[in-house]
Amino acid sequence: MKALVFKKVRAPIAYEEVPKPESKKGQVLVALKAAAMNHREVWMTKGLYPRLKSEVIMGADGAGLVDKRAVVINPNVNWGDNPGHFSLAYSILGMPTNGTFAEYIVVDEDKVVDKPEHLTFEQAAALPLAGLTAYRVLMNKCKLKAGEKVLISGIGGGVALFAFQFALAAGAEVYVSSSSDEKIQKAIALGAKGGANYQEEKWHKNLGRQVGGFNVIIDSAAGDGLGKLASLAAMGGRIGIYGGTRGAINNLSPQMIFWKQLEIYGSTMGNDEEFSDMVDFVDQHKIVPVVDSVFELSDGNLAFKRMSEGLQFGKIVLRI
Amino acid sequence: MKALVFKKVRAPIAYEEVPKPESKKGQVLVALKAAAMNHREVWMTKGLYPRLKSEVIMGADGAGLVDKRAVVINPNVNWGDNPGHFSLAYSILGMPTNGTFAEYIVVDEDKVVDKPEHLTFEQAAALPLAGLTAYRVLMNKCKLKAGEKVLISGIGGGVALFAFQFALAAGAEVYVSSSSDEKIQKAIALGAKGGANYQEEKWHKNLGRQVGGFNVIIDSAAGDGLGKLASLAAMGGRIGIYGGTRGAINNLSPQMIFWKQLEIYGSTMGNDEEFSDMVDFVDQHKIVPVVDSVFELSDGNLAFKRMSEGLQFGKIVLRI
Repeated sequence: MKALVFKKVRAPIAYEEVPKPESKKGQVLVALKAAAMNHREVWMTKGLYPRLKSEVIMGADGAGLVDKRAVVINPNVNWGDNPGHFSLAYSILGMPTNGTFAEYIVVDEDKVVDKPEHLTFEQAAALPLAGLTAYRVLMNKCKLKAGEKVLISGIGGGVALFAFQFALAAGAEVYVSSSSDEKIQKAIALGAKGGANYQEEKWHKNLGRQVGGFNVIIDSAAGDGLGKLASLAAMGGRIGIYGGTRGAINNLSPQMIFWKQLEIYGSTMGNDEEFSDMVDFVDQHKIVPVVDSVFELSDGNLAFKRMSEGLQFGKIVLRI
Repeated sequence: MKALVFKKVRAPIAYEEVPKPESKKGQVLVALKAAAMNHREVWMTKGLYPRLKSEVIMGADGAGLVDKRAVVINPNVNWGDNPGHFSLAYSILGMPTNGTFAEYIVVDEDKVVDKPEHLTFEQAAALPLAGLTAYRVLMNKCKLKAGEKVLISGIGGGVALFAFQFALAAGAEVYVSSSSDEKIQKAIALGAKGGANYQEEKWHKNLGRQVGGFNVIIDSAAGDGLGKLASLAAMGGRIGIYGGTRGAINNLSPQMIFWKQLEIYGSTMGNDEEFSDMVDFVDQHKIVPVVDSVFELSDGNLAFKRMSEGLQFGKIVLRI
């Protein structure tokens, strides 16, 4: 079968022929119809991912057929017994075990769930890792309630967009931030109540005056900006952090944290139950993932280029 | 009656004759037997406290008699309807309303609870504000469970010592940190499993090797040290922040926060229900507050001096 294979750091991904896997007892063979990219695959090519192994088929996200059953794949490998955090044995499909950028994959039979009928394979393949991360941090960590005010920073990324769509579906009033006015306008077209460009001076003060305090803030930048986000939180606000692209948190006022009784939750991925709950939530609310672009599997390196440029609004999908 | 009255910033507290208050319907007159100091009174004298008003009787903590009933006073004024955070109308006895450093105080009748019988008035007076803050952050925010490993930073302060005693009573394995070896030894004598002097280089690495990760960390320093505390947290660890004596949080890794799925809770004071729960907990576990020293009310300025030097281990109490 054909697959996109990780060779080594700072080298192109190889589109090549590899052996078709075979399922054992308790496993299923999925004929993949679509897969989707995450930032982790770009980090792998830059050497910024743990336990890198060459000759591994990349990709965490996939949807396809088990015989005639249409499924979405749960990318968790060995989450473990504690729903609160993953075990030491945990990993995600696509490193160090083979992933979804291939014609076939074998996974444990409890790792596939029915594809929501309202989604195409390409839309369904966009769900797994980003949807799971967004669902856990927004719904189970920050415990979003209907009617609350939510700020999603860095709109356009996969997790940010799912958090945005899930918050809307949950009945929240959702605002976004971005360095791109175009992305903010796209989010407003999708239902955002407003947005702010964080490259503008005093953006947070203007947004704070407009909104009057957010109950929930979802961020993956951290860095110097987290203090500004905290200043935008309402009393009793919850901040979910699922990334740290801007590096170490600096200049964050502890007085603001304890005075406003803020809660800050670190969260990444989610457990198997959260995966099922997330797909059910998508099905129930007929949420359609935002797909930025679709590439053929053989054009994998073009998809990697698109992802590393950071211009996407939604998920980058591979058609298989 | 005699009272300790706030006059102005950077001036001595006045011990002087003031009118005895009178209770209205729904209020009680408490004949105070003892009061206790908190850092906030020192901050007032330095001008570092909001809404300062001169001619106010200071003091949040007190115990005394309502007729023949021995009571402890809940220092909350107008917490409000939301148990999650206080209302805009919230304050604490002793600024801007009159406090406990006096022979008498009038409070709403629902703001007194029975003094635990195993405590003297001086011990009971040590409980309110520090006990309430410690109880909320440790039990209701960080949700400490029996058998967990806990680190209390800055042992010796009122809140830190109550958090320490409550954690022990709840069946946790408790460690402490301090800049003073003497305070660490005192904590070990009281039941701490171990401790570390944070002025030593690599103290956190040594403590981490010894303990292997804390489930709960209670801190009031913040600053550059919070990142070291976070590095000591176990997977799924909870960090409670109730102060920020070292200023802004810097150099805190977001990757550590989301990878370990940490939860950071800002917390200060507590609601009225938490106050009752705290006094019940103290009663049930027969906890005896650590009293550093007892001064006569007329020696109030000596008590302030002791507090501002930071040498105390436990609460500084005023006998009335």
